Amino acid sequence: MTNDEVIKNTNYDLAIVGAGPAGLSAAIYASRGGLKTVVFEKALVGGQIVVTAEVENYPGFAETLTGFDIADKLKAHADKFGAEFKLEEVKAIGVEGLCKIIETDKGTYSTKSVIIATGAHPRKLQVPGEQKYTGRGVSYCATCDGALYRDKIVAVVGGGDSAIEEAIFLTKFAKKVYIIHRRDKLRAVKVIRDRVFKNKKVEYVWDSVVQGIDGGDMVETLHIYNRKLDEISDLKVDGVFIYIGIIPNNELVESRVELDPRGFIQTDEDMHTIIPGVFAAGDIIHKTLRQVVTANSDGATAAFSAEKWIEENSDKFD
Amino acid sequence: MTNDEVIKNTNYDLAIVGAGPAGLSAAIYASRGGLKTVVFEKALVGGQIVVTAEVENYPGFAETLTGFDIADKLKAHADKFGAEFKLEEVKAIGVEGLCKIIETDKGTYSTKSVIIATGAHPRKLQVPGEQKYTGRGVSYCATCDGALYRDKIVAVVGGGDSAIEEAIFLTKFAKKVYIIHRRDKLRAVKVIRDRVFKNKKVEYVWDSVVQGIDGGDMVETLHIYNRKLDEISDLKVDGVFIYIGIIPNNELVESRVELDPRGFIQTDEDMHTIIPGVFAAGDIIHKTLRQVVTANSDGATAAFSAEKWIEENSDKFD
Repeated sequence: MTNDEVIKNTNYDLAIVGAGPAGLSAAIYASRGGLKTVVFEKALVGGQIVVTAEVENYPGFAETLTGFDIADKLKAHADKFGAEFKLEEVKAIGVEGLCKIIETDKGTYSTKSVIIATGAHPRKLQVPGEQKYTGRGVSYCATCDGALYRDKIVAVVGGGDSAIEEAIFLTKFAKKVYIIHRRDKLRAVKVIRDRVFKNKKVEYVWDSVVQGIDGGDMVETLHIYNRKLDEISDLKVDGVFIYIGIIPNNELVESRVELDPRGFIQTDEDMHTIIPGVFAAGDIIHKTLRQVVTANSDGATAAFSAEKWIEENSDKFD
Repeated sequence: MTNDEVIKNTNYDLAIVGAGPAGLSAAIYASRGGLKTVVFEKALVGGQIVVTAEVENYPGFAETLTGFDIADKLKAHADKFGAEFKLEEVKAIGVEGLCKIIETDKGTYSTKSVIIATGAHPRKLQVPGEQKYTGRGVSYCATCDGALYRDKIVAVVGGGDSAIEEAIFLTKFAKKVYIIHRRDKLRAVKVIRDRVFKNKKVEYVWDSVVQGIDGGDMVETLHIYNRKLDEISDLKVDGVFIYIGIIPNNELVESRVELDPRGFIQTDEDMHTIIPGVFAAGDIIHKTLRQVVTANSDGATAAFSAEKWIEENSDKFD
């Protein structure tokens, strides 16, 4: 990278990496607030929500929307205030003094501040049918989709705290909840185990892994392999919730920011990381609840904080 | 209060105090999540936003909405999932073991958990015209309304950090920003003072207080009293931003929860106060950015946390 290249592309106030809800909300706030803002997205604007069939709980939309609808609305809102979008994959983020250098698969850009909004992704089973039925019976979020399974039969895959908590949550709606776990005991802590063992709607499928997901338009059958008995069987369900871990997309900064034990970025309450002028927002940060509305809130706060940070350091950029 | 009265009204899982965005979002999440939820509001559903003429930055609504529109949408969303609303003023919140007793001007209710979402209010000038023109030229939030004053003339009343930061922010849009301050120097910290004194769009009206706000449909004139010269004059403006403090509505719990130095409630990241089962959300909590989207996010997180807390303590309620 020569100096010429950098100078050619300078003059962004803020670069946002990732165009999911957090990034889009940050773009709305930042561009409305007068920051020259660019958003980089490597795949689909909307992020993870575009694989969600129905979003019932983004406050303000009583009508059920698809993830695409929400993404479109957020994108249109950011467009209105003039945020610039580039469908480029960010490969590296450099820091030179207070300036940040963004290298993508197509070019090099410099910016005063950055918001990392690259999100997270659920660990996949990686079995046939999983991808095909995502949003059509396969879900990674009971808080999002549980209410859609009233009086239905669902399965939860996993044995950790969140798997079991979500299984308990699902018993509020579903008439039966199978817990499919590859061992013969749960990894969840005792208080949660005690609670689930008292719940009469829950049935256990021990020592078993899901090998395939089948159905018509929607999920109908799970192909199960019992490792102890070395037997294959089918389980009829209307939905399957996969809780075998969530992985933060932290590759761009993991060695330079503070992470929690699971790899999520630690920010202060202004969404600032320990790198001056580098903020983080949305599913990638350490937080309690990962939802569109919390991502949007993080994004707004990060943009607001970026604007204050630039203003406070304005003499150093001239 | 007799035991009979309490028993008669038991069996709420969650009582939400305040039906602004935080309370409404909490109601959406809680009732969708299967909690029996009641929302108490003493005045208008929607809270402070109903006095905001235009909301341009609730992510997802590119079209400009009135505060009423947003309140209606959030209320309809909460109604859809069955949250119960009571137009009653909460007078006291008692704690008996893990149960909470809510006393209103009309009755007594018991509940497992509470979310305090009573908000905050800007300190008013309390001069003629202020109330009449609120939302029509009088604003208490530059982040909300600044972009509506492109190439207009505005005044900021106040001399503290936020007044001056917002004045600087407003220079991005307005062609001129008056700072009206009752003293002859700013109270804001040096770094902020240095910055504003370099800004050529800002003009100062020292030793002065606003005594009245006038206009037609919208604000046109401020009546100014110079305390040092003992003189009255008129100032032509298109808008006036009043930044003389924001006051948390913390009366119900102030002696029992942790507060920051300005009286806002300190919560943990789950929105939990130090009282088990009592959560707080929205403008009343200690936070960076007070906006509809951040209030909604707090409300969602508080409801999620209340649900987990009830589940964890479920054996103690039976």
